[in-house]
Amino acid sequence: MARWEPDAAGRLREAALDLYVAQGYEQTTVTEIAGRAGVTARTFFRHYADKREVLFAGAEPLEAGMVAALADAPPDTAPLEAVGAALDAAAELIGGDHAHSRRRQSVIAAHPELHERELIKMSRMADALTRGLADRGVPPDQARLAAEAGIAVFRIGFERWVAGPSKGDLATVLRESLDQLRGLAS
Amino acid sequence: MARWEPDAAGRLREAALDLYVAQGYEQTTVTEIAGRAGVTARTFFRHYADKREVLFAGAEPLEAGMVAALADAPPDTAPLEAVGAALDAAAELIGGDHAHSRRRQSVIAAHPELHERELIKMSRMADALTRGLADRGVPPDQARLAAEAGIAVFRIGFERWVAGPSKGDLATVLRESLDQLRGLAS
Repeated sequence: MARWEPDAAGRLREAALDLYVAQGYEQTTVTEIAGRAGVTARTFFRHYADKREVLFAGAEPLEAGMVAALADAPPDTAPLEAVGAALDAAAELIGGDHAHSRRRQSVIAAHPELHERELIKMSRMADALTRGLADRGVPPDQARLAAEAGIAVFRIGFERWVAGPSKGDLATVLRESLDQLRGLAS
Repeated sequence: MARWEPDAAGRLREAALDLYVAQGYEQTTVTEIAGRAGVTARTFFRHYADKREVLFAGAEPLEAGMVAALADAPPDTAPLEAVGAALDAAAELIGGDHAHSRRRQSVIAAHPELHERELIKMSRMADALTRGLADRGVPPDQARLAAEAGIAVFRIGFERWVAGPSKGDLATVLRESLDQLRGLAS
C-alpha cells in the first residue's frame, strides 16, 4: 500500500457511511471500513478513535466555523443576529452535500446511542457559542439563551433541510427557522 | 422489617443524595443507600433501576405536569405562552425544595455521564412538549421550535435559580428567562 494516502480521512468517512447504510451500523467493523477505503485499520485509528467517531468528527470544524463567524460579526450586531451569522457559516460548511447529510442522519436516527451522542455534541456546540457571545460582551445569561436558542434553530432547520429535496438551500432553511423563532417570541 | 414502607421511594432518594454528596457518587452502593433509608436492596430495586436513576426519576412527573399544563391552557393561547404555563407547572412541582435541587445539581455537574443523562431527559421533555403543542393545533415546525426554546429557558432558568439564594422563586426566574428570550428575539 502506498504510504501517501490523499484524504484518507474523507475516504474512510464515506466508506463507513456506505457500510452503515448498506449493512447496518452494528454489523460494520473498523476492518471492513478500512478495507473499503483501501487503507489499513491502523490508518483508520490514526484518524478516528472508533467507528462511532467517524460520524461525529465533523462537529469540530463546524463548531470552529460557527465560533469564528460570531467573532467576525460587526461589534454592534445583536446577539441573535450574530447567531444568525454563525448559522450561515454552518450552512457554508455542511450545506453542500445533501446526500451525505441525509445518509448520516438516517444512521443516527436509527440508533438511540448515536442520537444521544449527537445531543451531547450539540450541547457542547451551544457552550462554545455561549463563550463566543460572551467574548462579544453579551451578558452571560443572554449569551447562553441566544446560544441555546441558536442551536435549537440549527437542529430543527438542519433536520428540515435533510428531510427536504436535495436542491434545498441550508442557509435559507436555517434563516427561515430563525425567523420562525422570532415570530413565536414576538 | 415492616412490609409497609411509607414513601420508601422518597426516603431512598434523599438517602442516595446524602451519600452522593458526602462520599461521592461512584463510591456509593445501592446497599448503602437502602441501609441509610432503612429498607432492603430489594426494595430499592422495586423503585429504581439503579443508583443513577434515583437522580432522574423526577423527570417523569415533571414531564407529565408540564404536558398537562399545555393541555389546560385556553385554546387561543399563543405557543410560547402555553410553554410559559408549562414552565409555571414545572416551578410548582420542583420549586419548593431549593436545597434538594441544589444538592442534586452539584452531583450531576461533577459527573459528565450524569450531565449527559440529564441532557437526554431534557431532550425527551422537549419531544413531549412538541407533541403537546401539536395536539393544540400548533404546526409541527413551530411546535418543535417553541418546545425546544422552552426547554432551553427551563434549563437556563433552573440553573440560575439553583445557583441563587434559597428564597428565590423558581416561577419568577423561569418567567424572567422566557421574557429574556423574547427580548433577544425582538
